[in-house]
Amino acid sequence: MKAIFSAFVSSLCVYMRKHTLNSESDRRRFLTKVSLLGVSAAAPPAWSQPGRPEWTRQPGGVDLPYGVPSEFEKAVVRQLSPDAPGFATWHTPLERLQGILTPSGLHFAVHHNGIPAIDPQRHALVVHGLVERPLRFDLGRLERYPMVSRIHFLECSGNTAANALSPFAKDLSAQDLSGQVSCSEWTGVPLSVLLREAGVKPSAQWAIVEGADGGTHQRSLPLAKLMDDAFIALYQNGERLRPSQGYPMRLFVPGWEGNVNVKWVHRIELSDQPAHTKDEAGLYTEVLADGRIERFSFTMEVKSLITHPSGRQRLEAPHGYHEISGLAWSGRGPITRVEVSVDGGRTWTDARLDGPLLPKAFTRFSLPWRWDGRAATLMSRAHDGHGRVQPTRSAWKARYAAHAFNHYNAVQAWRVHRDGRVENVYA
Amino acid sequence: MKAIFSAFVSSLCVYMRKHTLNSESDRRRFLTKVSLLGVSAAAPPAWSQPGRPEWTRQPGGVDLPYGVPSEFEKAVVRQLSPDAPGFATWHTPLERLQGILTPSGLHFAVHHNGIPAIDPQRHALVVHGLVERPLRFDLGRLERYPMVSRIHFLECSGNTAANALSPFAKDLSAQDLSGQVSCSEWTGVPLSVLLREAGVKPSAQWAIVEGADGGTHQRSLPLAKLMDDAFIALYQNGERLRPSQGYPMRLFVPGWEGNVNVKWVHRIELSDQPAHTKDEAGLYTEVLADGRIERFSFTMEVKSLITHPSGRQRLEAPHGYHEISGLAWSGRGPITRVEVSVDGGRTWTDARLDGPLLPKAFTRFSLPWRWDGRAATLMSRAHDGHGRVQPTRSAWKARYAAHAFNHYNAVQAWRVHRDGRVENVYA
Repeated sequence: MKAIFSAFVSSLCVYMRKHTLNSESDRRRFLTKVSLLGVSAAAPPAWSQPGRPEWTRQPGGVDLPYGVPSEFEKAVVRQLSPDAPGFATWHTPLERLQGILTPSGLHFAVHHNGIPAIDPQRHALVVHGLVERPLRFDLGRLERYPMVSRIHFLECSGNTAANALSPFAKDLSAQDLSGQVSCSEWTGVPLSVLLREAGVKPSAQWAIVEGADGGTHQRSLPLAKLMDDAFIALYQNGERLRPSQGYPMRLFVPGWEGNVNVKWVHRIELSDQPAHTKDEAGLYTEVLADGRIERFSFTMEVKSLITHPSGRQRLEAPHGYHEISGLAWSGRGPITRVEVSVDGGRTWTDARLDGPLLPKAFTRFSLPWRWDGRAATLMSRAHDGHGRVQPTRSAWKARYAAHAFNHYNAVQAWRVHRDGRVENVYA
Repeated sequence: MKAIFSAFVSSLCVYMRKHTLNSESDRRRFLTKVSLLGVSAAAPPAWSQPGRPEWTRQPGGVDLPYGVPSEFEKAVVRQLSPDAPGFATWHTPLERLQGILTPSGLHFAVHHNGIPAIDPQRHALVVHGLVERPLRFDLGRLERYPMVSRIHFLECSGNTAANALSPFAKDLSAQDLSGQVSCSEWTGVPLSVLLREAGVKPSAQWAIVEGADGGTHQRSLPLAKLMDDAFIALYQNGERLRPSQGYPMRLFVPGWEGNVNVKWVHRIELSDQPAHTKDEAGLYTEVLADGRIERFSFTMEVKSLITHPSGRQRLEAPHGYHEISGLAWSGRGPITRVEVSVDGGRTWTDARLDGPLLPKAFTRFSLPWRWDGRAATLMSRAHDGHGRVQPTRSAWKARYAAHAFNHYNAVQAWRVHRDGRVENVYA
C-alpha cells in the first residue's frame, strides 16, 4: 500500500510536469500563483498563526440515529426528469460527487409505475416453470444462503438520450444529461445457486422475470446469463435495498441495462422462449439506421464522462491548474484505459485511473490541466478489457435510426468558454 | 469475471460437501428439508403459479430527491452508547448489514464535544509551523487538487472495550459490543502533495493536527506516516462528508485509530516534537501489564467478528443450514486468511473471503454451517498480510494492565444455545 501510494504521488509529479505544465519553470510559476496568496517576504500573514475558529467557542450539536448530510449540501439531490411522461426518472448529481460510489439516497431510479410499499414479511420470490421442483424464497430463507457482494454500475438504457436525439447540443448539466447511471455495492444470493436447487430442465433457455409493482414489470432474459453472474440483491451499500431500488429484493444482472434488473422481483419462470412482454417489445428495442431491429440488446457498452468540469459549471479561477476528473464504465468488464483531450479531439493524453479497477464498475479517471484562459473543448474516451472503445457521436448516429436513443455511449464533449462557463457541445 | 464467479459457485458446492454437510445424503436431506415446503408429489402447490401480489393492484408511491430507507427498516439505526459520560458514541448495527460498506448514515461516530455546524465558505485548513511557506486551503482551492479514493475501515481505539474490561462476558449484541468500526470509500487530497507544496523543513518530524470543534481536538502524528498515505478527506461514499464525520474536511490516516483521523481539521502545524496534548496524554495512551506505558500506539491490529449469527440474535430454524458470515480488518494491510471454529476453538476451517481483498478495509468472510441443534461456540480468527494473527482473550489480557481497554482485538466467541439464542462468551 505504501509503495502504491508513493508511486501515485511520484507519478502525479511526473504527470504535472509532462502532460500539463510545459516546463519546470511553468510548474514553479503555477505553484507561486496558487500558493502564495498575499504572503510578503517580511512578516507571516495573520492566518498563518490560526487562532480558534468561531465553532470552537461553543459545544457542538447532537447526532441522529440515522445520519443525514449537512444543511449546506441541500442542493445535492436527485432531479426528476421533466421529459418523460408516465415515468418517474430521477437523475444522480454526478458532478457533485467524487470517488466511484453513489450514496443510495442519490442513486438514479426509473419507476414505470411508482414504488410499491412492500411488507417484507408478506413478500416472496417463486422460481417456477421449467424446473424439477418449484421453490419459494421469503426473506428469512434467502438470508440463510451464501451471499456475494459486488461493486457494479447500473445504467438506464436511455441514459444521455438528449445527445442521441437532439439535432443541437442542449445546454444541460452532467446530472440532466447523463445522470441515469450510478454505482453501488450490491449484495445478494447468486441466482445459479437457487436455480440449481430448483433443478433446471434441459429445455429451459429463458427466464421471465416479473416485479411486484403496479405494472408488473416483466422482462425475458437468457438463462445462460442468469446462471453466470446474476444474483438476487437484498442489500445496497451495506444496508437493505431502498424502496426505490426494489425493496425487499431485486434481480441484479451485472453490466446489463437497468430495466432488466427487475425490482421488487416476485417470480422467475423458466421457459423455452422469451415472452415478448410489453416491457421489451417496444421501449427497450432499438431500430438501426437500415431499418433492422435490435432486440434483446442488453449489454451497456463502454462509456465515460468528465464530471469536473462539466455542463453548466463555471471554472472559478480563469487561469491556472484544474483537475479534470470523470467516470468510465463498461458492461463487458474492467476499464483498461481512458484518454482525455483538451483540444476537441486533436490530441489525446492517457488519464490516471484510480484503482482498484473493478469489472462492470465505475472507474474514476483524472488528469491535471493548466487552463490558459482560452476556449477549450474537453473530451474523454474510454477503452474496456474487451478492446471496445467509445465511438464518436457521428459514428453512433450512423448506426442507429434517427429516432433511436437507447444505448447511447458516444464521446462527450464539454466546451469551456473564455469566461469559464462549461457547455455541452457536439464535437 | 465469469470465471471468478463460476469458480466461486463451484467452490461453494465443494464447501457445502466438505466442511458442513457430513455426506451427500446429508446434503440431499438438507435440500429436501429447506426446499420442499409442503410440495406433494401429486399436484404443484398453489404458490408455484403465482398470481399478482396485492402491491400490483395499485399505482406505487413517489420517490424523494434524497432517498431514505424503507419504513420497515426503522430498527436499523445507530445506538448511542450509554456507558460513556461526556462523550457521544454512536455504534454501527454491524449485524444488520451485509457486504463491506457502511452507509454514511450508519457510520459509527465518537464526538468529544458535539458536532460543530461549520459553514464551508468560512472554513479553511492552514499548514504552518516548520514549513518554508505557510499555506491556506479553503474548499474551493482543495477541489482543484488531485484526489484519491480509498475504501478503508475506521475503528475507535476503544472498540469492544466491554470484553476487555468486564470480568464476565456481558450479553451484548455485535452493535453494542463492537459497533465502533465501519468502512467507507473516502476521497480527498493526499497530504503529501500539500506538505510538499508548503515545503517541509528538515527539522520537522511531527505534525500537530487540530479540529475546529468545541474542544479543539488535537493529536500529534509522526510526519512520516502523513507523507506516506494520509489525505484530507472531503467526500465519504461519493458525497461530501457528513457533519458527524468532519464536514467539510477531516484528516484520514489509513489503518490508524479513529481519534487521530481529526475531524473538522483547521490546522496542521509541523513541529520537531509531539505536543503531548490533552487528547493524547491520557485516554489514548495504554498501560501494559508490567506498568510500562505505550504512547502513540496508533495502528489498529488485525481483528474479526462474526456478524451472522451474533449476540442477542436467535437462529430461526433449530436445525439445518446457516451461513456464518462476518468481517475482518487490519490496520497493517489486507486480510489474507480467516479461520472459523464452530466447536469453541478445537478445530478451525478456512472461511471463504469475498474479494476484492483491499488493504486496510473490511473483508467479508463466510462459511456454510449445518447446525445439528446442539449448543455450539462460534469463533473467527483473522490473519493479515504482515503475518499477524488475532490473540486469544487471555493472551491479550496478559499483555495489558487490568484496566486497559484500547486496541482490544482478541478472538470473539459467540455461544449458540440449544434454543437458538446467541450470546457473547469468553472462550
